[in-house]
Amino acid sequence: MTKERLYLYDTTLRDGQQTQGVQFSTPEKIQIAKALDGLGLDYIEGGWPGANPTDSAFFEEAPKTKARLTAFGMTKRAGRSAENDDVLAAVMNAGTKSVCLVGKSHDYHVTAALGISLEENLENIRASVAHIVAQGREALYDAEHFFDGYKDNPEYALAACRAALDAGARWVVLCDTNGGALPSEVGRIVSEVIAAGLPGDHLGIHTHNDTENAVACSLAAVDAGVRHLQGTLNGLGERCGNANLTTLIPTLLLKDPYASKFEVGVSLDALEGLTQVSRMLDDILNRIPTRQAPYVGASAFAHKAGLHASAILKDPSTYEHIEPELVGNARIIPMSNQAGQSNLRKRLTEAGLNVEKGDPALSLILERIKIREDEGYSYDTAQGSFELLARDALGQLPEFFEVKRYKVTVERRKNKYNKMVSLSEAVVVVKVDGEKRLSVSESMDETGSDRGPVNALAKALIKDLGRYSSVLEDMHLVDFKVRITQGGTEAVTRVIIDSEDSKGRRWSTVGVSPNIIDASFEALLDAIRWKLIHDDQTEALKDV
Amino acid sequence: MTKERLYLYDTTLRDGQQTQGVQFSTPEKIQIAKALDGLGLDYIEGGWPGANPTDSAFFEEAPKTKARLTAFGMTKRAGRSAENDDVLAAVMNAGTKSVCLVGKSHDYHVTAALGISLEENLENIRASVAHIVAQGREALYDAEHFFDGYKDNPEYALAACRAALDAGARWVVLCDTNGGALPSEVGRIVSEVIAAGLPGDHLGIHTHNDTENAVACSLAAVDAGVRHLQGTLNGLGERCGNANLTTLIPTLLLKDPYASKFEVGVSLDALEGLTQVSRMLDDILNRIPTRQAPYVGASAFAHKAGLHASAILKDPSTYEHIEPELVGNARIIPMSNQAGQSNLRKRLTEAGLNVEKGDPALSLILERIKIREDEGYSYDTAQGSFELLARDALGQLPEFFEVKRYKVTVERRKNKYNKMVSLSEAVVVVKVDGEKRLSVSESMDETGSDRGPVNALAKALIKDLGRYSSVLEDMHLVDFKVRITQGGTEAVTRVIIDSEDSKGRRWSTVGVSPNIIDASFEALLDAIRWKLIHDDQTEALKDV
Repeated sequence: MTKERLYLYDTTLRDGQQTQGVQFSTPEKIQIAKALDGLGLDYIEGGWPGANPTDSAFFEEAPKTKARLTAFGMTKRAGRSAENDDVLAAVMNAGTKSVCLVGKSHDYHVTAALGISLEENLENIRASVAHIVAQGREALYDAEHFFDGYKDNPEYALAACRAALDAGARWVVLCDTNGGALPSEVGRIVSEVIAAGLPGDHLGIHTHNDTENAVACSLAAVDAGVRHLQGTLNGLGERCGNANLTTLIPTLLLKDPYASKFEVGVSLDALEGLTQVSRMLDDILNRIPTRQAPYVGASAFAHKAGLHASAILKDPSTYEHIEPELVGNARIIPMSNQAGQSNLRKRLTEAGLNVEKGDPALSLILERIKIREDEGYSYDTAQGSFELLARDALGQLPEFFEVKRYKVTVERRKNKYNKMVSLSEAVVVVKVDGEKRLSVSESMDETGSDRGPVNALAKALIKDLGRYSSVLEDMHLVDFKVRITQGGTEAVTRVIIDSEDSKGRRWSTVGVSPNIIDASFEALLDAIRWKLIHDDQTEALKDV
Repeated sequence: MTKERLYLYDTTLRDGQQTQGVQFSTPEKIQIAKALDGLGLDYIEGGWPGANPTDSAFFEEAPKTKARLTAFGMTKRAGRSAENDDVLAAVMNAGTKSVCLVGKSHDYHVTAALGISLEENLENIRASVAHIVAQGREALYDAEHFFDGYKDNPEYALAACRAALDAGARWVVLCDTNGGALPSEVGRIVSEVIAAGLPGDHLGIHTHNDTENAVACSLAAVDAGVRHLQGTLNGLGERCGNANLTTLIPTLLLKDPYASKFEVGVSLDALEGLTQVSRMLDDILNRIPTRQAPYVGASAFAHKAGLHASAILKDPSTYEHIEPELVGNARIIPMSNQAGQSNLRKRLTEAGLNVEKGDPALSLILERIKIREDEGYSYDTAQGSFELLARDALGQLPEFFEVKRYKVTVERRKNKYNKMVSLSEAVVVVKVDGEKRLSVSESMDETGSDRGPVNALAKALIKDLGRYSSVLEDMHLVDFKVRITQGGTEAVTRVIIDSEDSKGRRWSTVGVSPNIIDASFEALLDAIRWKLIHDDQTEALKDV
């Protein structure tokens, strides 16, 4: 049986940016677009050029993608031609091969919100789509409020879609803009739309999660015949979010009837990168990943119930609907039992530490991790600090140097031009090879800009570490993440530092303290220790 | 038309406690049970007495509820009678009117996981249910892995359910234990079960969210004829969670076909307490409430898109599927790059600033917001800083005081007990009413713990602000959020501070800088200014 093609359209960069508190920078948009393209999405909607400066900037610097980059806008306004609508012109000027325009399909919105006649709205849709097609571009029409509109006035909602199709739109996307439609309604209405003569292979679906049914409504629409699905990574989007592609993609690839019936642009190989893409987006947003997220969440394959955990050891399929590896995720079984230790051994091996099965160090390490996690530490991403903790428990952590004390000063005052400026200074006292060394640095970078107290502290620490200083020259900080979290009963600051060196290695370390400078310093110390160990400071290691 | 009764069964205290990281204390269980009873749930499953010490304790101290308190357990084991099964006896000893037992219905699990014969399992179900009924209690049977079992061996899955019904079970609950079933499958299978002669008014549904379809699967089962729904508050539960009652309840009460067809125990009055109940649970768990949660999330009625916001002002139904007040939630129109002037005017009115339509100050404010957001500021949540920015543009921001300079020192060294400790000191110089004032504070709290440099700086700033100091006495910081974000081409730190005063007011302010201390200081200054304005420092305002 030949499979039918189902097209996936991502709107993380546009509707996803409607999430409260989300505002992507241009480099972030580029990073996300590349990840989406790597997954195999068919369309990437980049934003609304002209409406938003960062959206315009993104299209100017857009990466080359296999996916069709799509600019979003709205149908031309009444009382002017498509050619003379400056809002539409800004969208066209982004120069994308595909252009998606939202337009009304609910009669009430045409008269009440736009204040124009029903026929004027149809003409706006027709003329706008025709304008896109005339310029040799692919046109998509987002039929706003389609389901509510259809319930009030089915003839008009269909007329709006027909106007777009007749003018040459490749896709007419049925939007549940307010998110209030239920899956059974969506299924019934889509069937009626197709029965009314609109071809399913020109129809798409765009849902919102206001009743927690965005994914189910999308599947119901596919069941009824649409062949184009819109959604966002991690379900970002206006209000409660859009249909979550991070959930829909594995469901379509791994579950019947979809897996047998449809071909999508995402391969099974690419699917294994899904968890990573999801986490990357959370990193960009500095959000804690949702543990209970389907497929990609840290808890998605965590088996807490005792009955479940013991059956899982016999056969994972007893309590798992798919294999976690298929989406790049992993099984978690509470640390206390046998499987906890084998998980740990796997992680230790990845860090180059071989520990025999049954070694008492394993429970010591698990115990220390638990205590530290209660204090607010997190070793999920901070692999570097995990390795140091394990080495310490195993007696394989050399003491390269000792920090005796440090002092950081942050000062803000007027400069000679009467402008408020800040400057930080850091003094660090370390003991290396029995010798005390005192270093000082300030927070100014080469361009004369203040980079803050953590920067000053890092520079002072690395400045004079005796025989180690040369090893650390090629190491630099690439990211710095701060979270206020709970440590015991008090709020504490957790800092995660990502470091990189000229060999292309990248490692993450963590520090926790009520004092952000201390937390940063702790993460920094771990970063340096990791680097020294991995640059094979054999002499130091021999001392252990 | 008389409505059919649909029964709601809550398992927050049992399956909800299977959530990774969740462990309720007995007082917490009591608090949650009372809240569930206040909402009007029909059943509250309190836990598995005997399997978990806090579950046993809860049943001993259980509050009196209108809802039927239910003890959970499993069907008796093979090779002994129901009367002689100690695990079942512990469940019965909780003395609840209703008892719910999980048992196998998937043939593979009977033979592979339990290692008994298929007939033995049926006998275990029959005997266990009969034992409950013989003691005058109501019996419920959770048919574990029902949907997977039905797909493999429909006859056996049905036989397990019939065994329970024949023995007198009031409800047979069809469980999608692994969470892999899709809504269309659930609908089809439930229809087939009812067609096979099992009565819908004795059937229930229990789903998990592993494909993000727990709510949709529950609705599909109700559509097909079940009359008993299981779920948890906020969708807690093993792995990805159970069906979310916080979503299902308003959907059943407010949306057709459910609202017209069914009567449930939750009244429209009680529904107005839903958001509060959801937040209470997050409070108990010390979790940040999910902003995008359907119905009850802080973003559920937040309208960020400019086009949406302007229509909402005309008629909220244009972009809202229900009125937020029905579930005790509220509408939010946040600021962002995409905000229009009408959105802005609404926000200004909320802040007590009336600006006429078309006032040139409106575009000045929007322009300033845009510039600031490009620098890394965010005004979505920082309502306090938004108001100050607007006041400044409108010439309505008094200069209460001027900060001339500040200096913060962070020092880490060994104390007299040879333990590394940190201490921060801050010196702030301000000019108030023409007079220069110098204050100093340290970071130690009453218990002798270091609270870090930002704490020291805040204390020093507030310490001596002349005539303003008394106004600031009742103000305190309740939250402090840090994010590394992009400002122009450089990474900058964004700090958001939430403050509160004795009048119960709460406001958020924002600061941005490459230097985290500076960013915090800026947010802190805004917090103080907002408080001074809102405490009606009339004299200062007169100077404007």
